[in-house]
Amino acid sequence: MITKRLKKQIDFIIEIDKMKNIFRKSYITDASRNENDAEHSWHIALMAIILFEYSNFKDIDILKIIKMLLIHDIVEIDAGDVMIYDKKKQKTKLEKEKKAADRIFSLLPDEQKKEFHSLWIEFEERKTKESKFARVLDRLQPIILNYCAKGKTWKEANTKSKDILEVNQIINDGSTELWKFAQELVKDSLSKKYLSE
Amino acid sequence: MITKRLKKQIDFIIEIDKMKNIFRKSYITDASRNENDAEHSWHIALMAIILFEYSNFKDIDILKIIKMLLIHDIVEIDAGDVMIYDKKKQKTKLEKEKKAADRIFSLLPDEQKKEFHSLWIEFEERKTKESKFARVLDRLQPIILNYCAKGKTWKEANTKSKDILEVNQIINDGSTELWKFAQELVKDSLSKKYLSE
Repeated sequence: MITKRLKKQIDFIIEIDKMKNIFRKSYITDASRNENDAEHSWHIALMAIILFEYSNFKDIDILKIIKMLLIHDIVEIDAGDVMIYDKKKQKTKLEKEKKAADRIFSLLPDEQKKEFHSLWIEFEERKTKESKFARVLDRLQPIILNYCAKGKTWKEANTKSKDILEVNQIINDGSTELWKFAQELVKDSLSKKYLSE
Repeated sequence: MITKRLKKQIDFIIEIDKMKNIFRKSYITDASRNENDAEHSWHIALMAIILFEYSNFKDIDILKIIKMLLIHDIVEIDAGDVMIYDKKKQKTKLEKEKKAADRIFSLLPDEQKKEFHSLWIEFEERKTKESKFARVLDRLQPIILNYCAKGKTWKEANTKSKDILEVNQIINDGSTELWKFAQELVKDSLSKKYLSE
């Protein structure tokens, strides 16, 4: 017989399958369709491993960063995806996400619920070294995808290069080197007309 | 200016975006469409974190397990997905995958190429504790998905319960407890007619 504990863990594992149906504003690199939250989370967790050396901080916990990245968008199962340049919707987003975190993480056994909940809050608050670097990947990846997709999302939303540079400045807090790279991509996107000023 | 090293890392990050277009035989839980390799890798990496306590081994490296799971299917970008019950195709699969590993991991800087290549081989060989537990998740997840999708893939491929039990016995090498759970799911699937004997 399956234990109550394992039952809870399996219920959570089944619930989060819904991430595969939460579509983001970004397109995958070939621009054929929008990316979903599960794919995005996989991509940035692997990016964290590959780009770890560019962190502004020494002695940071890569396992914690990966855990944060794998779970950070689970709240969107209930709260949906909101584009970071949509300032109006960003305001109501956090309340919805808090309720979602309460519901979804509560499916897990108590100590795992607490761990995931606190990882999610840490990621959102962006005060620790790990969360600052985790945010680098979460912000850099859509810029790379959009560059590959010739600015498809940016054109659709009429996003300006100054908005991208303003909103994504937080990359600099986690990695000065990757922020330089992101700025170069934006500059190049501008010259290729993937974006307007 | 972007360094040669960062350029290689970004090229790899862009190349692996193709995982989002490699579709597996499994359906997502709502049975609406097939799952892709990127989503699968995200799901099992998170499952490893949640189900770690059921490993048959103490003192195993969870970070190594997660890395293996995030990269184990990258070779399918060139080699494609082959159903584990298709014994004929399984034979030619490994050769194709070796070539794919050579090409794709070589996009990375040398020491990262070596690390990823050896993680992939370790996963394939299934000799270490970490690879044995990583395989548990890789094998258990499709059984869970298929159970939720009322056996859609099994019905399409006319998969028998004895094949599932035979091919997935390796779960027992990494987790006796999760193997018991997998067997219960198969038994229940049989009684619900998601499967034939």
